[in-house]
Amino acid sequence: MSNLKPNSKFSTFDANMMARALALATEGRFSTTPNPHVGCVIVSEPHATKDQFDEAPVIIGEGYHERAGLAHAEINAMEQAVANGHSLKGASVYVSLEPCAHVGRTGSCAQALVAARVKKVVVACLDPNPMVAGKGINILKNAGIDVSIGLMQSEAQELNKTFFFRIEHGRPFVSVKLASSLDAKTALASGESKWITTEQARADVQIERAKACAILTGSGTVLHDNPQLNVRTHQLPSDIAVRFSRRQKQPLRVIIDSQNQLSSQQHNILSDGAPTLVYNIKHNSAIEHENVEQRQLNSRGNGQSNIGQKIDLLAMLKDLACQEINHVWVEAGANLCGALFEKGLVDELVVYQAPMILGNNAKDLLKVNAPEFLKDATRFSISELKLVGGDIKIRANL
Amino acid sequence: MSNLKPNSKFSTFDANMMARALALATEGRFSTTPNPHVGCVIVSEPHATKDQFDEAPVIIGEGYHERAGLAHAEINAMEQAVANGHSLKGASVYVSLEPCAHVGRTGSCAQALVAARVKKVVVACLDPNPMVAGKGINILKNAGIDVSIGLMQSEAQELNKTFFFRIEHGRPFVSVKLASSLDAKTALASGESKWITTEQARADVQIERAKACAILTGSGTVLHDNPQLNVRTHQLPSDIAVRFSRRQKQPLRVIIDSQNQLSSQQHNILSDGAPTLVYNIKHNSAIEHENVEQRQLNSRGNGQSNIGQKIDLLAMLKDLACQEINHVWVEAGANLCGALFEKGLVDELVVYQAPMILGNNAKDLLKVNAPEFLKDATRFSISELKLVGGDIKIRANL
Repeated sequence: MSNLKPNSKFSTFDANMMARALALATEGRFSTTPNPHVGCVIVSEPHATKDQFDEAPVIIGEGYHERAGLAHAEINAMEQAVANGHSLKGASVYVSLEPCAHVGRTGSCAQALVAARVKKVVVACLDPNPMVAGKGINILKNAGIDVSIGLMQSEAQELNKTFFFRIEHGRPFVSVKLASSLDAKTALASGESKWITTEQARADVQIERAKACAILTGSGTVLHDNPQLNVRTHQLPSDIAVRFSRRQKQPLRVIIDSQNQLSSQQHNILSDGAPTLVYNIKHNSAIEHENVEQRQLNSRGNGQSNIGQKIDLLAMLKDLACQEINHVWVEAGANLCGALFEKGLVDELVVYQAPMILGNNAKDLLKVNAPEFLKDATRFSISELKLVGGDIKIRANL
Repeated sequence: MSNLKPNSKFSTFDANMMARALALATEGRFSTTPNPHVGCVIVSEPHATKDQFDEAPVIIGEGYHERAGLAHAEINAMEQAVANGHSLKGASVYVSLEPCAHVGRTGSCAQALVAARVKKVVVACLDPNPMVAGKGINILKNAGIDVSIGLMQSEAQELNKTFFFRIEHGRPFVSVKLASSLDAKTALASGESKWITTEQARADVQIERAKACAILTGSGTVLHDNPQLNVRTHQLPSDIAVRFSRRQKQPLRVIIDSQNQLSSQQHNILSDGAPTLVYNIKHNSAIEHENVEQRQLNSRGNGQSNIGQKIDLLAMLKDLACQEINHVWVEAGANLCGALFEKGLVDELVVYQAPMILGNNAKDLLKVNAPEFLKDATRFSISELKLVGGDIKIRANL
């Protein structure tokens, strides 16, 4: 669990406490969007006793961030400690992300820690959010609190990978889901594709959807498959269902419909009452609905034709980032997935491969052009490889 | 290790001894072709002592079959026991395959066990070879030896899967090796394919070749890649190199050349002095060589054209089975691999997938037609899934 180097400024006890804070943070993994997942552990001040020099410090409060708008991890941990009659004065605080400086949806955590007169704060990593970014640390240090940074930093950054990515790149982290045969075909020539992968693999997709802030597809997939593109909570493992339920909303559905092909309100994604965002070039009056937002990109103005125009995918992703979408999960056809890939906008491929051969006249996985030379091909690295219901699950990251 | 059922006629001690016999058998895994891999353990007769009722039986001899023409496992185990001054009289013998009845390359093992006056023989599975098939058991039983059959039978059959397959089906077990990108492309449109997979994946292929009795390809691959199609012993892990070296020969190279496209003796597979078997329809005088055998299948006679004719793949495999080829390892192009697949002659796919996307205009994995409906597609089961040097290795069995 500990990855301490020799001569680290952190003790094994520190590492154990931060590992606990990280474990608490994962409780919010399916619900904190757009906020990061954060956990916090508060440890009592060591007291001198008759029998031994120091009484071993004990955990007096634990907390994690559950949902945007609710209290942050540090506040939850402090409240738990106080509720149990503990004093925060002189305590040590382990938190997986820099305490916030700004008074946003909730109060400033850094100021609350100062007010509680804690002695020491150990932070896994700084918050890249420009509204925080070292300001929380400064508040603590200026109040004379002993602040250390960097314990289990890489684990903490990995935990909030998509949040960090959005702040750093100004667009969401993009995961593209693909389901194919062993020869990378997604459907027969007839279009038949239900189902290539097993029920268990499709249940695994529900877990992946539950992690995402938004689910993206193209109008072609809507017209062809009429998907719901939501998270079926009852198909999730019970522990994940509980965690996803805390979010109290579905991931945002995002549909690219450059040519206004959606012409009916009978599509599941438009009619089931949950929010959907449609990107098009020209407003589409056929799909006006209180739960459907339309945004125009690349528009030449209402009076002109949108024929042949395509949504600028990077501009769309940047627009989603402005809406605090950290992580887009793509379930789309070979054209849209291929276009994202060719523009370098795919950060992760999650491939479910059924061990079948479907043959040459079946449909290809991705519509992309080959590189001219092999040396130009991008090599992903595999971060997950396992069997799910007899199918192969491959997670490939850039 | 033990998979004994309650009320099994076998004890845990029996299971431990048979597990040891199976482990010994694997020593011959790279060298016994065309013979099966067999291991044998001989245990002393329990003796009454002053201190306890029975002295625990001990292993007095172990052996395995190393190479066709050399002694069988039972003989090696008996020789070891005798050389160490042990008496075989009253001993118990654990052997992973039925002792042979026939006097083939070596003497009859069943008769040797009778002559040694052993008391008990435990056999994992019967030999499907019609020359043995229960006859060995009968020899033992007729001599009054206590014979039990079936301990760890499935493990023993799995160990000699390809040998059993050839006897049962009258053709070799066929493994098709494929190397591709994540989108199942084997080469760029230019033909560039060196290398899609990593050096470690290619070294793993050497281990797979070392298990095979024969390596099969088509003349197209010979003309395009000029491969050696041999086992580079120095690229094998040292323990496997030692075991493969015991075979004292390379796997047989088999080339399908229906149209006599091989026209030069400069091809590596024809010129390096190791044996190669070419299947064609008409004798090809251009490749006459002392190490190259040509066999004609589907011939209409020497005077007629072979244009458009193709080798009957099943007939070819049956011919290889007659030459005691248990296991064919195929490294060929999309056409030959696809033809084998379409004829139902692929028993195992071993796919090395590099985590890259090569695009639509790159070359397909297999030239086969899609089934009409998904329900008609053959589903393989995955028996091996791991990372090799950053590439994915998938073993899919029917």
